[in-house]
Amino acid sequence: MKRNILTLLLIITVQVVLGQPALMPVPSSMKVSPGKYRLDAQFRIAVQADPKDDILYPALTRAYQSLNRRTGLYFRQQQITASDKRSDAPLQINVSKKAEPEVGADESYTLIVSEAGIKISSLNTLGALHGIETLQQLLQRDSTGYYFPLVDIQDSPRFPWRGIMIDVARHFLPMDVMLRNINAMAAVKMNVLHLHLSDDEGFRVESKVYPLLQEKGSNGQYFTQSQIKEMIGYARARGIVVYPEFDLPGHSRSWFAGYPELASAPGPYVPGPRFDIDPEKDTKISIAAVMASPSPTIDPTKESTYTFLDKLFKEMIALFPSPYFHIGADENNGAAWKNNPAIVEFMKQKKMADPSALQAYFVSRCYTIVKKYGKTMVGWEELNSPELPKDVIVHKWLEEGGGMMKSHGSPAQIAAKGNRVIISTGFYLDRFLPAYIHYLNENFPSENNSNYLGGEAAQWTEIADRNNAELRIWPRAAAIAERLWSPASVKDVDDMYRRLFNINKLLDEQGIQQVSQYETGIRTLCDRSDLATVRSITDLLTPVKGYKKLFSRFSKSAVHMMPTSPIKQISDVIPVESETRYEFRMNVKDYLETKNPLSEQRIRTQLARWQEVSKLYTSVSQGNARLSEVNSHAEDLNLLSTMGLSILENIKSGTPYREEDLKKVQDAIDKAKKNTSGDVELAMIPEIESLLKKKLIPEPKQFGLF
Amino acid sequence: MKRNILTLLLIITVQVVLGQPALMPVPSSMKVSPGKYRLDAQFRIAVQADPKDDILYPALTRAYQSLNRRTGLYFRQQQITASDKRSDAPLQINVSKKAEPEVGADESYTLIVSEAGIKISSLNTLGALHGIETLQQLLQRDSTGYYFPLVDIQDSPRFPWRGIMIDVARHFLPMDVMLRNINAMAAVKMNVLHLHLSDDEGFRVESKVYPLLQEKGSNGQYFTQSQIKEMIGYARARGIVVYPEFDLPGHSRSWFAGYPELASAPGPYVPGPRFDIDPEKDTKISIAAVMASPSPTIDPTKESTYTFLDKLFKEMIALFPSPYFHIGADENNGAAWKNNPAIVEFMKQKKMADPSALQAYFVSRCYTIVKKYGKTMVGWEELNSPELPKDVIVHKWLEEGGGMMKSHGSPAQIAAKGNRVIISTGFYLDRFLPAYIHYLNENFPSENNSNYLGGEAAQWTEIADRNNAELRIWPRAAAIAERLWSPASVKDVDDMYRRLFNINKLLDEQGIQQVSQYETGIRTLCDRSDLATVRSITDLLTPVKGYKKLFSRFSKSAVHMMPTSPIKQISDVIPVESETRYEFRMNVKDYLETKNPLSEQRIRTQLARWQEVSKLYTSVSQGNARLSEVNSHAEDLNLLSTMGLSILENIKSGTPYREEDLKKVQDAIDKAKKNTSGDVELAMIPEIESLLKKKLIPEPKQFGLF
Repeated sequence: MKRNILTLLLIITVQVVLGQPALMPVPSSMKVSPGKYRLDAQFRIAVQADPKDDILYPALTRAYQSLNRRTGLYFRQQQITASDKRSDAPLQINVSKKAEPEVGADESYTLIVSEAGIKISSLNTLGALHGIETLQQLLQRDSTGYYFPLVDIQDSPRFPWRGIMIDVARHFLPMDVMLRNINAMAAVKMNVLHLHLSDDEGFRVESKVYPLLQEKGSNGQYFTQSQIKEMIGYARARGIVVYPEFDLPGHSRSWFAGYPELASAPGPYVPGPRFDIDPEKDTKISIAAVMASPSPTIDPTKESTYTFLDKLFKEMIALFPSPYFHIGADENNGAAWKNNPAIVEFMKQKKMADPSALQAYFVSRCYTIVKKYGKTMVGWEELNSPELPKDVIVHKWLEEGGGMMKSHGSPAQIAAKGNRVIISTGFYLDRFLPAYIHYLNENFPSENNSNYLGGEAAQWTEIADRNNAELRIWPRAAAIAERLWSPASVKDVDDMYRRLFNINKLLDEQGIQQVSQYETGIRTLCDRSDLATVRSITDLLTPVKGYKKLFSRFSKSAVHMMPTSPIKQISDVIPVESETRYEFRMNVKDYLETKNPLSEQRIRTQLARWQEVSKLYTSVSQGNARLSEVNSHAEDLNLLSTMGLSILENIKSGTPYREEDLKKVQDAIDKAKKNTSGDVELAMIPEIESLLKKKLIPEPKQFGLF
Repeated sequence: MKRNILTLLLIITVQVVLGQPALMPVPSSMKVSPGKYRLDAQFRIAVQADPKDDILYPALTRAYQSLNRRTGLYFRQQQITASDKRSDAPLQINVSKKAEPEVGADESYTLIVSEAGIKISSLNTLGALHGIETLQQLLQRDSTGYYFPLVDIQDSPRFPWRGIMIDVARHFLPMDVMLRNINAMAAVKMNVLHLHLSDDEGFRVESKVYPLLQEKGSNGQYFTQSQIKEMIGYARARGIVVYPEFDLPGHSRSWFAGYPELASAPGPYVPGPRFDIDPEKDTKISIAAVMASPSPTIDPTKESTYTFLDKLFKEMIALFPSPYFHIGADENNGAAWKNNPAIVEFMKQKKMADPSALQAYFVSRCYTIVKKYGKTMVGWEELNSPELPKDVIVHKWLEEGGGMMKSHGSPAQIAAKGNRVIISTGFYLDRFLPAYIHYLNENFPSENNSNYLGGEAAQWTEIADRNNAELRIWPRAAAIAERLWSPASVKDVDDMYRRLFNINKLLDEQGIQQVSQYETGIRTLCDRSDLATVRSITDLLTPVKGYKKLFSRFSKSAVHMMPTSPIKQISDVIPVESETRYEFRMNVKDYLETKNPLSEQRIRTQLARWQEVSKLYTSVSQGNARLSEVNSHAEDLNLLSTMGLSILENIKSGTPYREEDLKKVQDAIDKAKKNTSGDVELAMIPEIESLLKKKLIPEPKQFGLF
């Protein structure tokens, strides 16, 4: 009976939601008309385009086959080719000329779905790729079958640079992970993949000129040059530019494993964390220690360093056809340089007041090399200085007037100085923040400026690996994609979440592993324990925010900081965004606003279910160390859901709470809020508090780093 | 309350099962002693081996890190290297000499777990690789933590050739799928990966000598030579040999897209199914039509054909270092040759009585080329003839005295003639047969013979693609791995299933996608319908057996036969083996044998649950065409579980069934047995019938092909 009601409620929800397109990113202009274009087995594509467009036709074929799979309609066409010109084809594609993926190219398109058929038109290939993705997002189902709603879309991006930076150095992410990320990026119209290819923990690309880089610096985990070419080709076919970062002068321990002569301090070196630790010891590391650590840093005073970099950059620039080349340049505290008398002497002779002057010198030497080989240099904002050449792109990541490290100029200041800017500040996915924080990114300019190129979501991988990287990146990166594509005025958070969970399902269907990684992760942690009960609890958990989780590892022992340490706690395998909590929140919101009995019923069903499963959890987790870590959250959940049910009764009966009861509930809420056992938090506390206060408590505007 | 009981039952089951090692394949000799070797953070490995063994150390590192992840213990060691020699290390590895993967090499190893520590010793690298896999399978957990049971294992394989043939031609399977399959093969000690690289539907490897093979013959889906090298290297690191098949003279439509001059009939050709069909038409194809079809076949009468093959084989032989080269040679009905007057004339001049003589001529010409380049030729059994040179390996796939096509000699006959044999008869995974059929394979010799090399599981991919290939291959291939490794006397089916579902969990944990593919498949088919209800039903379904599902597609319309057609019905995304049904069967068996009240309670709980969810299914599937396909099975389930509960009552009360009630139940069972709606069957019917008959009905010994 309870199930029956639940199912009924679900069906109603689905029908309500299905009414409106759930595009992500929101197009710059869209008109929706009543009516539906229904798909059937006769669905086919005709194309007017350059017959030599080797990006367009395969993309159309993929989209067609994907719609075929999703609808199960058994379409007639096989491959879409230049000879497909039937005027009766329901989907007509018009592309004026072929184009290569390129930052700043025209990416506009028009998509019209009418009862008569569908038309996608664009100036070039890139716009058509976006139009095809939009069409795939439009697919909906009702009780009759699959259809597209009738729309008239004119679309183009707000910013030309819509990227993701993926750190494949801290933990290597193999080809399949990268290719799936590229698919997901294309689905949300992102066009730049920034590969963070080297860091202390690893040098992740094959050099034929300096093979010890990967042979000694990667523990066997790196991309071969063939794989890089494959990745670039795969991205190109999806409208995406791939460009490399070789992070220098800091973050370079792995380089020195093969070439210790490049370092400011004598070796030997093996790839590993930035700070010097011995995994055999119970060393603990504080944040302050990390910041002050004289971490391995390149020696910028030797000419042989630049001979090496010249040859390496030349090789890598030939490998990556993109016009951009990122040299890192972040987080060099200068401590290693100060420890080396020869370097101190060099600075003295050159009248360099501090390490930042030496850093500027190093940057300018790199600039000369990069420029010689015809590329535009990019670097993290620490490369910014008054002398920085105007054609260098500054990659922002620090916040203005806050945090432990000082900003090297606001976007407006950098742009005014004449440099172009890409922004990752506020787009760090590895901080476990909810999507709305990135979406409303208060560090992201609301105005436009021709020197603002756009931004990049950033996924660092100290505690992410092949088993959870997609779970960390998706679907939240889609909110960033929208911030970079859609007009600045698009910022309704509730509507964003509705669409975010929708795109999450689409990405799942397209083979991206973010949902599977959660399911597999919990399943294998369960190891024969009652999966359904465990899932009911973990569906309501979210990792602690900021760098709390990272430093919780650091505060244990050295071995917890090593790249080989297990990334396999509950906090590692759960998504940041709890869809269950989101649904609960929407129900609470609706109930508080409208007293809708349906919402009340839903809340009651959810609370009763949680009350039931939370009671079981402790026995289910028994003898399983990793499941037991969250026992106290299950206990909190039990208490809060019991209280939630009683609050509901209370609201209904209209009797005000007795003071001491109120205090008891508030105490339980406050205690639960402080619980970070297992590096996770219970996600639905604010909604219980909202019920108590009879007013939806707004989401926090920001979260602390530690 | 109901949940509480269920959880309790689960805990008890787990504890019972955890007692005994669940190795697969079963070692040739194993003694188990009471006691446990407990793992803790001090777990480490020391190695005595050739310091240059570039297979061993990375394999040890992977195994160590895998144990680290699975236990979550944060081990201290990072990479395992030749300098790891600590005598206090709990795991001591001794390998006398390094070796390359090779069919027929010594693969024996000794694994001793005592309270004092663990020791793996082997003559060479290959044995050590197997020992490491066995150790990983031994890992168990109790309420205190993780441990290895105390064992003394002496192990070596029954056959040197333990392979899987994967058809990457009908549907291309990209690199990630192949690499995961290689991981899974290594986990169950398989050592040969046979790549079926070409067929009518596609030519799947890059040729630099004849690039139109992949350019016109693959729709862009093929392995580059770099990828092949990567795959071979990845397999080598896991003790596996990779060898190619280029299927000729039939199954070769894709070759002719680029090189029509090779064909017996004029083109043009595009890659596609064997028979000539137009996907735009509603053509239906019968089995007889497929068999008689003059399908595209190479012209064996032209010298230019052999010039082409010489150059191509030379290129491919250089690419694949393995000593074996498979030329296919199967299923050539000669019809295309008979249609070509020039070929008929050639046969007349050469006094060839029928196409099989011409086929023998073609085979002998191929043999000359393969031999010239130093390889051992392998071919499907149709290449067998009295004249076949003795160094050719014959690949059996047809059954003796049965089926539509006649066998070309029994293994004993072929072996007696002096040829070596590998056997795939009875090992065809694409027939959706339960694992025990392959395990007890009645076509597989129970005796040994030095000319019996072993066998290969075979996964053809007419209706499997990247989204379900692992689901089709695993875990069933593990039963075949055991047949090929373990002594012939090991054949307890119940014990095999206990271990099979255990290895299924291990493979899931190691990243193989067979469980995820089911979950993702159902989730995306659900498309917002109530997943839990749908899963409860699909957990009890299994695809129809033999080629029924394939020909059910063929009988619809031409477009259902194309490689681009959706492979996304419920029957495509469910596993062949229903673990839920297996548990039910074990409960029924135990209950009928012992009247154990715990088993009775379990049966009752399962039936009550099915009764409940099956009632909901039709409303949940409403408006979802692919879910609705199995509505009638949900109805059958509802009736059968209701009847099952009443039979239980009846057994308990001891009152005999009334004749008319008995008939009603039997009629319902018989009707449900005949239901193949949606190309699936309800899996738990025999168990309901067993309850009715108060006697476990044995599993069928075989299944029909159509």
